[in-house]
Amino acid sequence: MPHQHTNSLFFVLFAFFILIMTSLYNFKTIIDLSFENSILRTNILLLNLTCNKDNNNKCLNEDPIIFVTPTSYRPEQKADLTRLGQTLGNICNLFWIIVEDAQLPSKFIDDLFNRLKIKGVHLVKQTPADKKLKFSDPRWKFPRGVEQRNSALFWIRNNLNSWKRGIVYFGDDDNTYDWRLFDEMRKINQKIGVWPVGIVGGMLVETPLLDRTLTNYTVNGFNSLWKPERPFPMDMAGFAINISLIHEHSTSLFSYKSPRGFMESRFLQSLDIKREELEPLAMHCTKVFVWHTRTQKSALMADEFQKFNMAINISSSLSTVEEDAIF
Amino acid sequence: MPHQHTNSLFFVLFAFFILIMTSLYNFKTIIDLSFENSILRTNILLLNLTCNKDNNNKCLNEDPIIFVTPTSYRPEQKADLTRLGQTLGNICNLFWIIVEDAQLPSKFIDDLFNRLKIKGVHLVKQTPADKKLKFSDPRWKFPRGVEQRNSALFWIRNNLNSWKRGIVYFGDDDNTYDWRLFDEMRKINQKIGVWPVGIVGGMLVETPLLDRTLTNYTVNGFNSLWKPERPFPMDMAGFAINISLIHEHSTSLFSYKSPRGFMESRFLQSLDIKREELEPLAMHCTKVFVWHTRTQKSALMADEFQKFNMAINISSSLSTVEEDAIF
Repeated sequence: MPHQHTNSLFFVLFAFFILIMTSLYNFKTIIDLSFENSILRTNILLLNLTCNKDNNNKCLNEDPIIFVTPTSYRPEQKADLTRLGQTLGNICNLFWIIVEDAQLPSKFIDDLFNRLKIKGVHLVKQTPADKKLKFSDPRWKFPRGVEQRNSALFWIRNNLNSWKRGIVYFGDDDNTYDWRLFDEMRKINQKIGVWPVGIVGGMLVETPLLDRTLTNYTVNGFNSLWKPERPFPMDMAGFAINISLIHEHSTSLFSYKSPRGFMESRFLQSLDIKREELEPLAMHCTKVFVWHTRTQKSALMADEFQKFNMAINISSSLSTVEEDAIF
Repeated sequence: MPHQHTNSLFFVLFAFFILIMTSLYNFKTIIDLSFENSILRTNILLLNLTCNKDNNNKCLNEDPIIFVTPTSYRPEQKADLTRLGQTLGNICNLFWIIVEDAQLPSKFIDDLFNRLKIKGVHLVKQTPADKKLKFSDPRWKFPRGVEQRNSALFWIRNNLNSWKRGIVYFGDDDNTYDWRLFDEMRKINQKIGVWPVGIVGGMLVETPLLDRTLTNYTVNGFNSLWKPERPFPMDMAGFAINISLIHEHSTSLFSYKSPRGFMESRFLQSLDIKREELEPLAMHCTKVFVWHTRTQKSALMADEFQKFNMAINISSSLSTVEEDAIF
């Protein structure tokens, strides 16, 4: 019966092959990329862009939006990302780049991508210890998200260099985004679109100020009260960038060396942008579609706070439900 | 030509009739209802319950969820309600009762209902001046939302008394709701469902504690550290109520007279609920689908804060874009 044996062997090998292929398909690739002498760990989820909304194919031909979110370990992180994910899950042709300030990628973020069927990529990049805010530090002590946004830029330049169209936006995990903001972004024609941001810089709304010509509106200033001498006194939430600009200026990055409050301005300057090139959106900057809301720091009792701090290394110190609240 | 005259008259009358009917249809009825010797102003939007999600008819036969949200004038109110509305707009068979602590209903809330196609009702009920928190007051000085939640209860009892099935839930405007919370609510069988709430009462998670019998799980306590002596040491976000219970106990209300932290407990006691009747949900209280997040108070500059305070009476003191940020 040698023939039958060959058949069985073939069957076993075939089953084994199928098993291997299936595991490979489900495997979320971890790629090491060297970047500024450190390791950027990349956890790639789904790279094929399809419409997130099953019943809405209308914007498949429109520019994809690349939404970059730096995020870090804190008691409210899971809540904030859940809420943001549920907002982004409604936007079609959106690609979400989450960059965690962490040693290892959090499983709940992968689950969020899968559950909400959001396309994107989950990266991890740690802030160097000497640049990291402590819980008790004031927010302004160091600029936050520098490393993470730069990792995203690096990733975009390496992996989306074939994308001729697309919009890059830096969106914090606790801001509030009206869905209509995404329609505005897709109107960007050339380089950079700008719009008002609610509750930021001590103001009800920070906004570009416009000049009206016979045929057009152009930005001729900003209403910022805080450091109005900045070249672009704007919050990160107030502009989005054509991806071609990111590719053309292939070395532009955010920098710790920018003076306090100048991070956005220096970055925009490095993209060779002039004020008159900014494209005012949101009905000539009269509508507010994004607010710089912040989630209040949780007032945890001392024991709970210690448990939270220890949990990042030894998650077994938590009960099942505590683990589910933060991881 | 008297016949022709009659025809023209008939035509004019008919056009007039159509005009009146159209206006009536679009008119958001303002009804005055006397309640505790004060006026409850009711702005009814759409009362027919249909599925919010165009492509999702699967839960039309399931219990409707009545989501009650007290809300008040503050710089972040519009942002919070926009974000919450976008979350609720994804839940089918949901009826949103917003109760504003205001003199007049805010137009942006009506617009939100219309834009997101959410079914519900928009009520206004002012907190008496002597019970109203000032901006600088600590949160615990008075219980918040008492009048507004009671107005909602009153409205439900008067207008939804024919509803034999349905779930009533009290959801703040700045909490974080995982969509899966709503699936849990619909599992309530008899009276009241309970589940864990993240980041509340100084803890990572407050949760009912369960006893496991051969066939069942029952609530035998709570892990609350703050005032654990309360009969039901739970946050408002941690339970939902079968509408039949609301109708059966037709005088149950929230009260300013409850000692601090006892508002939920006293209300549940007034519904004649025993601990063993609570139905533990969210996978035997091991999953967290709601977090008691709070939006940080905006650090507005003095001039901006004054502008904000004045705006509630004279909105013309704001520029168009400032108005859009908060109204």
